[in-house]
Amino acid sequence: MNDLSESLLTDLYELTMAQAYVAQNMTGEAVFEFFVRKLPTRRNFLMTAGLHQVLFFLEQFHFSESDLIWLEEKGGFTPETLVAFQAMRFTGDVHAMPEGTVCFPHEPILRITAPLPQAQLVETRVMNLLNFQTMVASKACRCILAAAGKPLIDFGLRRAHGAEAGLLAARASYLAGFAGTSNALAGAQFAIPTYGTMAHSFVQAHRDETTAFLHIAQSQPHNVVLLIDTYDTEAAAERVVMLAPELKRQGIVIHGVRLDSGDLGIHARKVRHILDRGGLEEARILASGNLDEERIEALVRSGAPIDRFAVGTAMTTSADAPYLDCAYKLQEYAGRPCRKRSEGKATWPGRKQVYRRIGRDGRLAQDTITVEQETLPGRPLLRQVMERGRRVTPSPSIQEIRDYARSALAELPDTLCRLDQAEPYEVRIAEALEQLAGQVDQDT
Amino acid sequence: MNDLSESLLTDLYELTMAQAYVAQNMTGEAVFEFFVRKLPTRRNFLMTAGLHQVLFFLEQFHFSESDLIWLEEKGGFTPETLVAFQAMRFTGDVHAMPEGTVCFPHEPILRITAPLPQAQLVETRVMNLLNFQTMVASKACRCILAAAGKPLIDFGLRRAHGAEAGLLAARASYLAGFAGTSNALAGAQFAIPTYGTMAHSFVQAHRDETTAFLHIAQSQPHNVVLLIDTYDTEAAAERVVMLAPELKRQGIVIHGVRLDSGDLGIHARKVRHILDRGGLEEARILASGNLDEERIEALVRSGAPIDRFAVGTAMTTSADAPYLDCAYKLQEYAGRPCRKRSEGKATWPGRKQVYRRIGRDGRLAQDTITVEQETLPGRPLLRQVMERGRRVTPSPSIQEIRDYARSALAELPDTLCRLDQAEPYEVRIAEALEQLAGQVDQDT
Repeated sequence: MNDLSESLLTDLYELTMAQAYVAQNMTGEAVFEFFVRKLPTRRNFLMTAGLHQVLFFLEQFHFSESDLIWLEEKGGFTPETLVAFQAMRFTGDVHAMPEGTVCFPHEPILRITAPLPQAQLVETRVMNLLNFQTMVASKACRCILAAAGKPLIDFGLRRAHGAEAGLLAARASYLAGFAGTSNALAGAQFAIPTYGTMAHSFVQAHRDETTAFLHIAQSQPHNVVLLIDTYDTEAAAERVVMLAPELKRQGIVIHGVRLDSGDLGIHARKVRHILDRGGLEEARILASGNLDEERIEALVRSGAPIDRFAVGTAMTTSADAPYLDCAYKLQEYAGRPCRKRSEGKATWPGRKQVYRRIGRDGRLAQDTITVEQETLPGRPLLRQVMERGRRVTPSPSIQEIRDYARSALAELPDTLCRLDQAEPYEVRIAEALEQLAGQVDQDT
Repeated sequence: MNDLSESLLTDLYELTMAQAYVAQNMTGEAVFEFFVRKLPTRRNFLMTAGLHQVLFFLEQFHFSESDLIWLEEKGGFTPETLVAFQAMRFTGDVHAMPEGTVCFPHEPILRITAPLPQAQLVETRVMNLLNFQTMVASKACRCILAAAGKPLIDFGLRRAHGAEAGLLAARASYLAGFAGTSNALAGAQFAIPTYGTMAHSFVQAHRDETTAFLHIAQSQPHNVVLLIDTYDTEAAAERVVMLAPELKRQGIVIHGVRLDSGDLGIHARKVRHILDRGGLEEARILASGNLDEERIEALVRSGAPIDRFAVGTAMTTSADAPYLDCAYKLQEYAGRPCRKRSEGKATWPGRKQVYRRIGRDGRLAQDTITVEQETLPGRPLLRQVMERGRRVTPSPSIQEIRDYARSALAELPDTLCRLDQAEPYEVRIAEALEQLAGQVDQDT
C-alpha cells in the first residue's frame, strides 16, 4: 500500500456518492463554490490562501493502483465504479480569488465547474487546503497589523497540527507578510527566508552560559542571536556585553539577543539599557514565548524596545479560532441553480461574482455579491485560474502573492485593522441574486 | 528538490546548534524528556498518542542529498557539518509511556537518550507528532466519556489542519475509542473502519429528495444512511418511510438517517416517532453538525433518541484547546543532570520514571515522579521502546492500543471523567527528585 494517493484523502461519502452519480449517469456539469459562512469572533476580515495547493491537487488528481485495490477490498464499490475511478482525472474549470485577497463571509473564494462526480470527489481536500491556509493567513494578518511594521517570524512548527500544517502555516504567514520562518523544510520547499537562534538546551548542555554563547557565535558568525533567559535574563545580558570584545577580536559581531519568558516588556527595557551601556547599541532584541497579536500590540503600544517578534503556536494553530465556518456547496447542476436550505445553513444559489468598490481614500468601500452574468461597477474578485484541468496562466510566485497581499492590507479601512471586532464591512447581495434565490425556492 | 526529507522538517536552530555541538565535539550522551507543563483549561487528564509515528521518524532519520544541497546553498554550514549530517542516523534509546496511557502534567511521556546532536535535531518533529496526537486523543476521550457508550465517528478531515492532521486525528481518535472515521486514506493506512453517508449536494443534484434517497440506497445497499435535513427534516423523514416498501421489494433495508442541523434533540424525537410509526424501528439515527463533547453530553442526558454521533472539527482541531503546553527539555548531558529555570518554565532535572498506584476500587490513586534509579510501589509508566535506534519489540497493533486505552479510561476516577474541571489528580514529586533539583541549582 505504498502508493496510496492524495485522491483517497477524502471522506468516504464522496466516493460512494460518486458511485451513485456514475451509476445514474449524472455526469452533467456541476458548480460548487467554497465560501466562509461567518467570521470567527474578533476577525474583521479574512485573507485567502491555499489556491496554489488546490490547483496542484486538481492537476495531480487520479486514483493509484493501491487506492483502487483498497476500495475493492473494502467492498461496496462496483467494478463499473472502479473502472470509472481508474480513468478519472480532473477536467474542470476553476475560478478563484487570487491568494492574498481580503475577503468576507458569503463571498465565493473558489468555484469549481466540472462533471458532477469529479467536483464532488475533490470536495474534502479542497476544503481542507483552503480552510487551513486562509485561517492562518488571516491570523497572521492580525499579528502583522499589531506589530506595526516590526518584522515577524513564524516559530510554530513544533505545535502545528502535523507536518503539512507546519509547512503550509509557514507559507500562509509568509505570503500574508511575515518575514520568514524557523521551518527549514518550508524554507527549502517554498523559497521562504529561514531564521533561527538557539535553544535553552544549548545553554544547559554547557557548563556555563558564556561558553555556550561563545560556541554558538563561533559556529554561526553571520547570525549571532543569543538566547538570554535560560537562568537570569539581565545577568545573561551582562555576560553578552562582557563577551562582545572577545568576539570582536575574532571578527564576530553580536546581532541580537532573544527573550523568551517573563514580562517581555520589562526585560526588554532592562536588557536594552545593559546592551546600550555596553556599547552594543546595534544589537537587536527579538521577543518570543506565547506571543499572539494581543500581546504584540500591547508590547508595541507600551514602547517596549523590541525589534522583532517570533510568533509560534498562536499563529500556526490560529489558537483563538482554529477553524473557519466554511462550506463547499453545490450551486448549480446541469444548468439548474440550486441551494441548501438547512436551518441556519442556507446558501446563495448559482454561479457568483464579487465586485469590490474602492473609495476615494483608496480603501475598501463596499462589496457586492451577484450572479456571474451581471457586471457591476468595481473590481471583480474572482478570475478563471484553470480551464479543463489546466492552469490558465502560471501561478504567481510567492513574492508576487506577498506583494499583492501587502497592497490588499493597505486597502483596509482603519476600523477593520483593529484587533477588536468592528462594525461588519458591507457586503451587499445584488437584486439579481435575491431574485435567483427566490426562483430556486419556488422550483424546489 | 524532490527528495527533501522529513529530517529537514525542523526548526533551523536545531541544525545550527547541531553544527556547534559537532564543532565542539559535544557528542556526549544527552537525555531529553517530553512532557506537558499544564493541562488546558477543563481537561482533567491527557491520553498519550503519537509514539508509533515518532519511532518511525527516528528509524528513518537521515538527511537526503537534496537536504544537504539546500543547507549548503543556504550557507552558514561548514563542510565538516555537512559531512557529519550526511552520516547521521538516530542511534539512541527511547523510553516512553505506551500510546493510550492516561497521563498528567510534568510526567515525562517520552525520553530520548542519544548523542547530543541527534537528540537535539529530532526535537521539533518529535514535539510536532506527540503534541498533536496526544491533544486529539485527549479531546476524543472527552467525547467518548460524554457519549456514554454510544459510538462516535470522526468526520473532521475537511477542517483538519492539512493532510497529516486529518490522518493522525483519525488514528488518535480511533485508538482512544472512536468507532471509526470518514477519512478513506486513514482507513487504508491505519486499518481503521471507515464510515460514510451522503451529502446535501447529493440531494440538491437531484430534482427531488426521494429520487436522491433511492439512488444512494441502490448504490450502497449494504449501508443505507439517508441525510434528511437538506430542506425540511421531518418531511424528509416521511419520505424515507414512504420509500421503505419500494426499497424492501428491491431487497434493500434502510439502516438509518442522519441529522445535521437545527436542534438535534428535537428533530431526533420527531424523526424517531415518524420512523417508528412507519415501521422503521430498526433504522438508527446518526447526528452530526458542530458537535463537541458538551453538546453530546447534553443530548445524551436529555435522552434524545440518537444512536451515534459524528464529531468533526471540534475534535480534529481540539477546538477549545488547539495545542498543549508541552516541552522537550534537556534533563542531563554527559552524566550531569540539568534543568532550565526560566521564569514560569522551570523543569525537573535528570532521567525520571513515573509510578502509578491503583486504589482498591481499581481506579487511579496517585502518581509519583521520581528519578529513574529509584523504585517505588506501583506500576512504572515508562518502558524502553527503542535501543540504539531499533525498536525493542514490534509496536502494538492499533487494536491492541485501543484495548489498552479502553482499560486506561476504565481506571479513571469518576471525578476525572467529568467534562468540567475537577480537583487535579495528585502527582507527587518524590523526595529523591526534589533533592536532585536542589543539587543541580547549587551546581549551576
